[in-house]
Amino acid sequence: MSTQKLKIGLLGCGTVGRGLVELVHRNDALIRQRTGVELGITKILVRDLAKERVGVDRSLLTTNPRDVLDNGCDMVVEVIGGIEPARGFIQHSLARKKHVVTANKALLAQDGFKLMKSAETHQVCLGFEASVCGGIPIIRALRSGLVGNNIQQLSGILNGTCNYILTRMTEDRMSFDAALCEAQAKGFAEADPTLDVDGHDAAQKLKILTELAFNARVSGDSIPVEGIRDITLDDIEAAAELGYVIKHVAAAEVINGAVALRAAPVLLPKAHQLASVHEENNAVLVRGDAVGEMLFSGKGAGSLPTASAVLSDVVDIARHKNRFSTRSGGRLSGGAADRDSKYFIRFVVREPSAIGRIATVFDRHGVEVNRAAAVWAGSVHVNHQVRLLTHSSSRKALETALKAVGQLKLEAGRNLVLRVAD
Amino acid sequence: MSTQKLKIGLLGCGTVGRGLVELVHRNDALIRQRTGVELGITKILVRDLAKERVGVDRSLLTTNPRDVLDNGCDMVVEVIGGIEPARGFIQHSLARKKHVVTANKALLAQDGFKLMKSAETHQVCLGFEASVCGGIPIIRALRSGLVGNNIQQLSGILNGTCNYILTRMTEDRMSFDAALCEAQAKGFAEADPTLDVDGHDAAQKLKILTELAFNARVSGDSIPVEGIRDITLDDIEAAAELGYVIKHVAAAEVINGAVALRAAPVLLPKAHQLASVHEENNAVLVRGDAVGEMLFSGKGAGSLPTASAVLSDVVDIARHKNRFSTRSGGRLSGGAADRDSKYFIRFVVREPSAIGRIATVFDRHGVEVNRAAAVWAGSVHVNHQVRLLTHSSSRKALETALKAVGQLKLEAGRNLVLRVAD
Repeated sequence: MSTQKLKIGLLGCGTVGRGLVELVHRNDALIRQRTGVELGITKILVRDLAKERVGVDRSLLTTNPRDVLDNGCDMVVEVIGGIEPARGFIQHSLARKKHVVTANKALLAQDGFKLMKSAETHQVCLGFEASVCGGIPIIRALRSGLVGNNIQQLSGILNGTCNYILTRMTEDRMSFDAALCEAQAKGFAEADPTLDVDGHDAAQKLKILTELAFNARVSGDSIPVEGIRDITLDDIEAAAELGYVIKHVAAAEVINGAVALRAAPVLLPKAHQLASVHEENNAVLVRGDAVGEMLFSGKGAGSLPTASAVLSDVVDIARHKNRFSTRSGGRLSGGAADRDSKYFIRFVVREPSAIGRIATVFDRHGVEVNRAAAVWAGSVHVNHQVRLLTHSSSRKALETALKAVGQLKLEAGRNLVLRVAD
Repeated sequence: MSTQKLKIGLLGCGTVGRGLVELVHRNDALIRQRTGVELGITKILVRDLAKERVGVDRSLLTTNPRDVLDNGCDMVVEVIGGIEPARGFIQHSLARKKHVVTANKALLAQDGFKLMKSAETHQVCLGFEASVCGGIPIIRALRSGLVGNNIQQLSGILNGTCNYILTRMTEDRMSFDAALCEAQAKGFAEADPTLDVDGHDAAQKLKILTELAFNARVSGDSIPVEGIRDITLDDIEAAAELGYVIKHVAAAEVINGAVALRAAPVLLPKAHQLASVHEENNAVLVRGDAVGEMLFSGKGAGSLPTASAVLSDVVDIARHKNRFSTRSGGRLSGGAADRDSKYFIRFVVREPSAIGRIATVFDRHGVEVNRAAAVWAGSVHVNHQVRLLTHSSSRKALETALKAVGQLKLEAGRNLVLRVAD
């Protein structure tokens, strides 16, 4: 077998781009030996030519997209992120029959089906392993390793920032704010953490995974999203006393022929496989009709793990001109829905004695209470708490009960409602 | 994209073969929709035409290999197992430029490199995802998902029988014999469990994974193998008191430019990722220079999980004529070696007072003892125990110390030596 040279045009040279340059430099001999593919980055699009970039050959840099797109490269790698101009660059490349590898989660979540269809039309490959969970080869597992399975359920810890913060709060009794600060200092959280801590990043990844796993079309805003800002140390301790840990979990499962999705903090039994995923790690749990439950876990972000995923697509396409076509159409539709579930609810109330009236209202609305506790905050305070753990109930009954409690005007603040996972 | 018809010749119709027939039947519409590949099993080689096979079309059965091998099928799937006649059938097919998918762990462990070379020569594909860890797509991860990584370490729970038995012993205080019986009753262990409980099955899988992960050639009998027959409930409890669980782990890592391999029971800290892999499940932990640590876990055996892996190779080859070539040659050599490690040693002694002399001998040979305990078995017995947990020590120093203890003639039975993993 002869060696095949591959010329890569790189769009962007931020965290992931620099990681790719480093990894190609470090492991190119190994990759050539393993696969017969010799990688060469021939042009790199940047915004600022003057910026310091350690380990990057300055003669490759350009600020003109045409130097990358209309040059003689075999493949375009997009690591700019965001919708435009990334989308325009990718569409331009596909239309000119160039293979594309992208790490662009936001774009894939918004336009994944359209872009895959375009790649299919132009008979080129679109690789996006790096768009979800960094170095964990979960896209590959869904497209190829589990291709013979009818996937029944998929759930995961898809946001490293949320998981890092919840881990620090749980293990070190750190406050949300202090844990967020530490995550930012360690580079696990952005300066503006909104997308991460409010759950939107996890929801975007869930959308990409769901469309692949279930052959489903998920429309833009159909995923109910909750973040972790409302979780307090008290909540984590109350959950622990009941035998649970609180994790931010994005999940999809088939209910009555449609895919139900949700990205929200939930209570997991301590023995649950996702409960032992700590720090900034990601994990995905997939249940298929043939393989049963399968767990993939590892680093879900970062320069080199993400570059590793980009590189796996680059090499696969070079070796196999691997279209991995995901036929458009959509077998199932995706959106919000919920199985019956136990729920954990924390009310902030003016009087701890509210526990009796709240439990009665729940009971009257068919939501059985398994455990209830009232926590007195001291005589000068009004933010006492009532905590409930319910038996399995429908989301609808729960919401009716919550509404009825609201009408009693017992509450002194926002309540917190978390699903308890099996 | 048009639909591509694929004719499969199936060699063998045992557990995995029947699983494949069932899975193709159950999910063929889904696979066609996902991939554009329409699967058809056209001939099935069996030994006994008269045997009852629920769900299998009897008109496809034949006892003549030529009906499968020299027929117009596009691909041969071998699920007979064992070395011959499976090897002959595979060589015959590759030489006739037919793609081959096999679940044959024993054959791959023995002749993997030779068969891959043959496939390369004849420009056809050889898929063997099903040969290791059933439905877990670990071969794919090593060949493709982590292709850009320099793999530094690989360890796993590769034998479901051992893990089931150790789980029952740990959780239910069952004896080894009772747990083995239960594993056999549930179909997790063979009637002759030797290959499993003595560690050889795990060693074969380790050999296949090591050759892929490290580009290494591992010679036949160079893996030190230990089984779990000597582990007692006492050992498991002693380990638990020290904060460890006992698991059968197969591991490979690069030490001084060579790959060191071992398949043996070890002590794992309770928080170790492999420590929470229970029952008959398998798991593989891989550390790459780019991705860091990554865990894959799930069902490592069984009819449908293994058939799922076979099917993933079949579909990949149909879509991509995916050679997945692993270039022969071998970057590293593989064999036995050991990093320094803590060790747990259980001596069976005639007198509990032997603890002092044993600890002194260890100390004199440079193996520092962290904790030592003597367990008195009662006045009429001679099988008292001395248990040591050492500080980190070289294997060589340990063996010298063990030999010196042996010369004191204190022992009344075989001792047990387990490595403590990090």
